[in-house]
Amino acid sequence: MERVYRLVMSSPDRVGIVARVASFLAQYNGSILEANHHADLEQGWFFMRNEIKASSLPFSAGKLAEMFAPIAADLDMTFEVTDTDVKKRVVLMCSRDSHCLADILNRWHSGDLPCDIPCVISNHEDLRSLVEWHGIPFFHVPVDPSNKAPHFAEVERLVAEHKADALVLARYMQILPEALCSLLPNKIINIHHSFLPSFIGARPYHQAQERGVKLIGATCHYVTSDLDAGPIIDQDVVRISHRDTVEDMVRLGKDCEKTVLARGLRWHLEDRILVHGNKTVVFS
Amino acid sequence: MERVYRLVMSSPDRVGIVARVASFLAQYNGSILEANHHADLEQGWFFMRNEIKASSLPFSAGKLAEMFAPIAADLDMTFEVTDTDVKKRVVLMCSRDSHCLADILNRWHSGDLPCDIPCVISNHEDLRSLVEWHGIPFFHVPVDPSNKAPHFAEVERLVAEHKADALVLARYMQILPEALCSLLPNKIINIHHSFLPSFIGARPYHQAQERGVKLIGATCHYVTSDLDAGPIIDQDVVRISHRDTVEDMVRLGKDCEKTVLARGLRWHLEDRILVHGNKTVVFS
Amino acid sequence: MERVYRLVMSSPDRVGIVARVASFLAQYNGSILEANHHADLEQGWFFMRNEIKASSLPFSAGKLAEMFAPIAADLDMTFEVTDTDVKKRVVLMCSRDSHCLADILNRWHSGDLPCDIPCVISNHEDLRSLVEWHGIPFFHVPVDPSNKAPHFAEVERLVAEHKADALVLARYMQILPEALCSLLPNKIINIHHSFLPSFIGARPYHQAQERGVKLIGATCHYVTSDLDAGPIIDQDVVRISHRDTVEDMVRLGKDCEKTVLARGLRWHLEDRILVHGNKTVVFS
Amino acid sequence: MERVYRLVMSSPDRVGIVARVASFLAQYNGSILEANHHADLEQGWFFMRNEIKASSLPFSAGKLAEMFAPIAADLDMTFEVTDTDVKKRVVLMCSRDSHCLADILNRWHSGDLPCDIPCVISNHEDLRSLVEWHGIPFFHVPVDPSNKAPHFAEVERLVAEHKADALVLARYMQILPEALCSLLPNKIINIHHSFLPSFIGARPYHQAQERGVKLIGATCHYVTSDLDAGPIIDQDVVRISHRDTVEDMVRLGKDCEKTVLARGLRWHLEDRILVHGNKTVVFS
Repeated sequence: MERVYRLVMSSPDRVGIVARVASFLAQYNGSILEANHHADLEQGWFFMRNEIKASSLPFSAGKLAEMFAPIAADLDMTFEVTDTDVKKRVVLMCSRDSHCLADILNRWHSGDLPCDIPCVISNHEDLRSLVEWHGIPFFHVPVDPSNKAPHFAEVERLVAEHKADALVLARYMQILPEALCSLLPNKIINIHHSFLPSFIGARPYHQAQERGVKLIGATCHYVTSDLDAGPIIDQDVVRISHRDTVEDMVRLGKDCEKTVLARGLRWHLEDRILVHGNKTVVFS
Repeated sequence: MERVYRLVMSSPDRVGIVARVASFLAQYNGSILEANHHADLEQGWFFMRNEIKASSLPFSAGKLAEMFAPIAADLDMTFEVTDTDVKKRVVLMCSRDSHCLADILNRWHSGDLPCDIPCVISNHEDLRSLVEWHGIPFFHVPVDPSNKAPHFAEVERLVAEHKADALVLARYMQILPEALCSLLPNKIINIHHSFLPSFIGARPYHQAQERGVKLIGATCHYVTSDLDAGPIIDQDVVRISHRDTVEDMVRLGKDCEKTVLARGLRWHLEDRILVHGNKTVVFS
Repeated sequence: MERVYRLVMSSPDRVGIVARVASFLAQYNGSILEANHHADLEQGWFFMRNEIKASSLPFSAGKLAEMFAPIAADLDMTFEVTDTDVKKRVVLMCSRDSHCLADILNRWHSGDLPCDIPCVISNHEDLRSLVEWHGIPFFHVPVDPSNKAPHFAEVERLVAEHKADALVLARYMQILPEALCSLLPNKIINIHHSFLPSFIGARPYHQAQERGVKLIGATCHYVTSDLDAGPIIDQDVVRISHRDTVEDMVRLGKDCEKTVLARGLRWHLEDRILVHGNKTVVFS
Repeated sequence: MERVYRLVMSSPDRVGIVARVASFLAQYNGSILEANHHADLEQGWFFMRNEIKASSLPFSAGKLAEMFAPIAADLDMTFEVTDTDVKKRVVLMCSRDSHCLADILNRWHSGDLPCDIPCVISNHEDLRSLVEWHGIPFFHVPVDPSNKAPHFAEVERLVAEHKADALVLARYMQILPEALCSLLPNKIINIHHSFLPSFIGARPYHQAQERGVKLIGATCHYVTSDLDAGPIIDQDVVRISHRDTVEDMVRLGKDCEKTVLARGLRWHLEDRILVHGNKTVVFS
């Protein structure tokens, strides 16, 4: 696959941003493979993502960032340059349910997910063998319900040790403490098994069955300290009927959960998601 | 179209119900064109719907009901017999938005909706001409926000005068008083412009935009005195993105609203919806 | 609604196009409200669409086109400038089925479709009253199956007389002759009642029933002289089951047809569709 | 889970079938947990599926079949009785792509797929380790392109040796010879990576890209000797855009393929699919 640099930025909206950025890239003969803009007129904010053919530029991603910095400063921009040759390091967390984890591992193993997975952390032993078969270290970090702090301290240590760029909660059934959330802002991805904001919190399929809804859903979002209220990345639904019990919903929901989580993770890895306030711009 | 009698029933679940009902029908040579059963094992409740070719039976729908009554009594059944030659009388209510009303009227006018529409009632004049072009009487019943009682009294009078079997709130933007709701239990159909239970109440698209969801929806439900909490008949969603403003959502949501409402209304007209507690069994 | 100029272009791909176009606009203080690019790497072709706030530019749409022309020439570009204050003139054609026509007319009448509809042409009288209620002239141009030329001659005359910018075949059941197709290339929109390329030609729902498919669909495409083979604009599907007869499919398909056609027409009116070869780029 | 007997049957349609069957079951106090009927009026054929609580009957599944046989004979019925305590033996076949295989294995390993998997057969070695990790024997049976007969002879031998009740082609990229197809009629399930009947045969995503469709799909069907023309079990689609290359389609299509295949396989395992001619009745 073609090596690509990605230049992703956001700033207050004003006339001429695209011209400045595009001229900067053209000046060095940068070949733009994909470009996306979005102007949020209500918020007065501008978002942009460029994929540039690495071989078309006469310098590295680091140098690109350095040379772009003055323009960014001038335009009050927040920006990031990434390089597809430098894979993100994604630590996965899980509990007992294997569907999301197995799905991510299979995609990664097939070469369909462009990231490294330095380790998997779980509060249960159940999925060790599955993880280790993929050649990935598995850490069992038990949770003491009466004192969860040691668990999270150890998680934090492992995340640091493995130099994680992102964390994926693949049906990890613990609420992260604020301190952990703030270590990786907009880089911790969760899958919630409901169509948020419906059925926040525990046992959403039971809530869905109670209410008699005709569609159930799943929501992939960035984790903030406010439970199930972080910026939504993607959602999807699946049709159910009066015949479906809670057990059926759990089973049907799994397909939805794993697909939505995988889609959200891919977009994250490809730097397609820009967070502004509590909402996302997704250049999918 | 083949004339059909529909025998729709529910009862406590027990062994032998289908045998009793099917044997009863077979005894008179009744030809079953479509049959649906559902046993709710948790609630211990049984639901059944049969479509019987009218010409295969040696008696009328009324007589069928009469002859079935002893079996129903024996099995603690609630049941109803309907006849496709006797169309339901559906009164439509609307405010200013035409999309749901125009859609229902076009289906009816094309012969796609098997019902009579004795009149349309609105708290605004706007849609009079559209309704009258279809040859349907239009009643403008204004609402005085400081005293809504006269409005609802007049609505009640019109509903009675036109012998309505059902009421459809086609984006009628007033909350019905309990007294009116209880006149036609499980026969008043509303379309709410959100994926309930998300975004109950006013301005759901604004709420959706605020939360940053990636799908918006519509919910067709029976009206109870508890706002937006009645038994759900059908729901659907439409994908949106960060580019969509509230105005875009309103526009995109319209397609969802009209399709879901039309589907729910059709099922109601075909006696496919059985309500039990606050949930529906839909033999679609 | 904000008045907008749209600058839509395509050209051989090369480095610096975006910079040239964006700099041109920035030079005159043009405020870009929405921008979309696409580089087809396989074909080596570049596509771009810009929405510019009209009031931010010191000149008219005509002047914009004039001033942009040298850049376009330099870059071997095909381009077009449109102005939202100049509505496209869309002539609708229909036969007997009203669902697509009524849906488009209702959207237009509600102010949801930004176009003028100078007239409706049909080979049947059936829908005259519906059309005329909307205040639109209706022309009945009968078809003699043994000699269709006079019909198409008259259609051509009416299209010219009404200065049509686009033609929408809203379930108009005649095949257009090549001469008529070539009058308005990539401006005649058809809705075919199947998921193309499945079930080309007549009676697609019968073909679908015969094959036992589990989804039926609709396809909105530009008309070329090659039946049902023109560039596809949009498609959608609806789930069916073994219970659905051809009549049910016809009914269920209608919702799909009208939604897909309306979506395709909107994109056309907003200059979101660029045709290249037999495929479309849709900046939706 | 409750042990269940399933009585699945089809026959020429006539009055009284349901009464006969339901009365038979009621006579022995059989508790019907789920029942589905379908009368194909055009074909004059009747289909029925009953789930009976095993513990409610005073005899075994075998005895149930024996006692039901005279009724079936009398009504010209084809029927089958199955017992959820006797799991179907499903042999999986694959080539190199792991997505469908890994998905099925994960569902089975999680206890979500009620079947035994006695072995996996492949014409390549690639997926051996994945299969063996699940504790399932893996047989590599190479194909000699110039003489495929030995391959299929060995497949046939393995299928017989492992007493397969069903065969699942989980992206097994060889066409089965007629002799093998006829060994397990309506028990060999394939997933084709297109929305049939579009794009039959090889490289459907390339065909899709060539045609410029806006949705791609997958089709799960029973294998007959007529390539990609067997009875369709289920289909689904996923939206694509002009930005998606063939590689993107392949990736996006995988989610569709594995979900549709898993759904079809589950229905097969639950005896929900009845084949009549070249079409299926699916009591989902």
